Amino acid sequence: MDRLEQIRATILAEVSRLPPERVPVAAAAGRWLAAPVRAARAAPPQTCSAMDGYAVRAGDVAGTVSLPVAMTVYAGDPPPPPLAPGEAARVYTGATLPPGADSVVREELVREEGGRAAFSRTALAGENVRRAGEDVPEGGEALPAGVRLGARQLALCAAVEAGEVEVVRRPRVALISTGDEVAGGRTPDSNGPALAAALAAAGMVPERRAVGDEVEAVAAALARGLEGADAVVTIGGVSVGARDQVPAAVERLGGDVRVHGVPMKPGKPFLFARVGGKPVLGLPGSPSACLVAFEVLARPALLKMAGAARLLRRRVPLPLAEPVEGRPGRARFLWARLEEDGQVRPVGHDAAQVKGPALADALLYLPEGTGAVERGRPVEAWLLEDDA
Amino acid sequence: MDRLEQIRATILAEVSRLPPERVPVAAAAGRWLAAPVRAARAAPPQTCSAMDGYAVRAGDVAGTVSLPVAMTVYAGDPPPPPLAPGEAARVYTGATLPPGADSVVREELVREEGGRAAFSRTALAGENVRRAGEDVPEGGEALPAGVRLGARQLALCAAVEAGEVEVVRRPRVALISTGDEVAGGRTPDSNGPALAAALAAAGMVPERRAVGDEVEAVAAALARGLEGADAVVTIGGVSVGARDQVPAAVERLGGDVRVHGVPMKPGKPFLFARVGGKPVLGLPGSPSACLVAFEVLARPALLKMAGAARLLRRRVPLPLAEPVEGRPGRARFLWARLEEDGQVRPVGHDAAQVKGPALADALLYLPEGTGAVERGRPVEAWLLEDDA
Repeated sequence: MDRLEQIRATILAEVSRLPPERVPVAAAAGRWLAAPVRAARAAPPQTCSAMDGYAVRAGDVAGTVSLPVAMTVYAGDPPPPPLAPGEAARVYTGATLPPGADSVVREELVREEGGRAAFSRTALAGENVRRAGEDVPEGGEALPAGVRLGARQLALCAAVEAGEVEVVRRPRVALISTGDEVAGGRTPDSNGPALAAALAAAGMVPERRAVGDEVEAVAAALARGLEGADAVVTIGGVSVGARDQVPAAVERLGGDVRVHGVPMKPGKPFLFARVGGKPVLGLPGSPSACLVAFEVLARPALLKMAGAARLLRRRVPLPLAEPVEGRPGRARFLWARLEEDGQVRPVGHDAAQVKGPALADALLYLPEGTGAVERGRPVEAWLLEDDA
Repeated sequence: MDRLEQIRATILAEVSRLPPERVPVAAAAGRWLAAPVRAARAAPPQTCSAMDGYAVRAGDVAGTVSLPVAMTVYAGDPPPPPLAPGEAARVYTGATLPPGADSVVREELVREEGGRAAFSRTALAGENVRRAGEDVPEGGEALPAGVRLGARQLALCAAVEAGEVEVVRRPRVALISTGDEVAGGRTPDSNGPALAAALAAAGMVPERRAVGDEVEAVAAALARGLEGADAVVTIGGVSVGARDQVPAAVERLGGDVRVHGVPMKPGKPFLFARVGGKPVLGLPGSPSACLVAFEVLARPALLKMAGAARLLRRRVPLPLAEPVEGRPGRARFLWARLEEDGQVRPVGHDAAQVKGPALADALLYLPEGTGAVERGRPVEAWLLEDDA
């Protein structure tokens, strides 16, 4: 573990998952599971056909034979009667298999005429059959805790008839933009709306405030934020400038600064503190630095509170479309575009850029100690999603 | 272009982007831009310091020199007076540079004492300076049409003071689950809630209905769906089974089936039709097939209507954690997990599985004609997002 990863581990050790609550599946989209979802009903619920075809006892179809078609079963029909030896059943995809049948021969391999099915080859036991509970047995675990309920997870919850699920309470996050230039309206606050959208996309509840550079005012905003929220994210006021008042405000409230300054570029001034038992995540005010520090350090901590099992973005090594260079003594992050050929190309290097992040769909990570990396060599790409 | 890509191109050629509307940036999260965002204000608005340090005229600092510190400028301060030749200004990150200054020397390289700044090396013109409009000049294009407004894009809109943006109207999508087994409640409808969540996550407005297997009822549901919606997505009733009534319902309404059956597995029975000038996207009812056909053919068409420039998921070649095999005469898609080492491992092959898709974070694409692919070889992975 390098220094940056150690710092992240320190922060993660200081935050805990919020309490669970039970909600109907219909209201659970975008939430994280606090406990596994168990199957109230097996998936599939009955042994059924995986194909349009003919259900048989496999032993009855050795080579080319012809069997009488005793019944037809569609998906959704009531349970069919047993299949007598020496008979076939016409079945469609999803149809419950008649008791006794153990194989489905695809319709392309069967010729039906005059109520009889002529098979052109030997049937194999189990082929084209989906056994009851094959996906998930009744009472079995459908999904583990820590998974987010997106579209495909909601499909599984519906299939196993999970009426309610146990999810983690949504974190309420006070989001405080600091600085006279922002509070006074001279500079547009670009970080505040961005982080509010990012928190909402991650299933959290942001509560925005803006405050100037006075340490009393910052302390008061922090105190108000801490009252109602589970965590506070501040923007600006954390570097070494004489007007950087977030550390002073934390101390004024009797809080404890655990991390201040991180060996990374951009995002170096990041601060982590605890005040009144709650976490305070201090992001730098430069737009790119703010967004990088959020991705690398703040978002994982908030996702842990939200109950997520995976705290970092999906990461894959991807080849560089142009050479890049690490920075001595710290990790470096670069916003990048994923190109058609699967290469990644950096867009904008400067800490204050707002255009680079907006055009990026990945964040490249050059760990501390990385020197020059040639074109075509792989680097770790953190894959950003479309909506945050 | 192989057969599957040709079919997708046929479908895409049949759908058009919906009309644009102007909305305030604050209400535009998750929407697609119908027109570029132009900068009402340059980013950055003034030439400013990229560092905490000392602003100088570069020509004044050749080697080790000492200059009087004439002023201090913080981010957000009113515009400072000009810097006289032979003077330095103490500046903090984001501070407007005094006219005349063209270089900022990092504070680590300067010793300030008794109102004078002692420089330890030559200053370079332009270093640590962010020129006004460097990110986006006033009136310049901040974001192109077709981009989705997520967190980082909203930051850029705020920075350039785009008060309103032109976005595409959200597609209203009628989502019709067909089949007696679903409408009658004997089988839980797992596809309906999943696709409703997927459409909502993609910024669309789903309107759910359920209907049985009678062709009149399916036609009536289609007609009602077409009245209020921009497109219809049906689930089930599109394969060759005798009860598969979607194609018959389309014809009963005077519609035109353009695609029925696609060389892919799963998802083969997919149907595309036009009825009354609107697109109908018919998905198979087997859960995995339904979700694959949605990803591969329906979602791109709906995203085109929504105004997205990128219609397919982000795709990267990733190495296989275990061998896979293509299917003769058709493309194959496999749900897969991204492993810690960047490899992809298939989870569940069967068309009807609901557990595989729920555990997947990628969809692997083996184009038609792909044979056996060994462990460690790259395959095209479509990267799924967390919330859909």
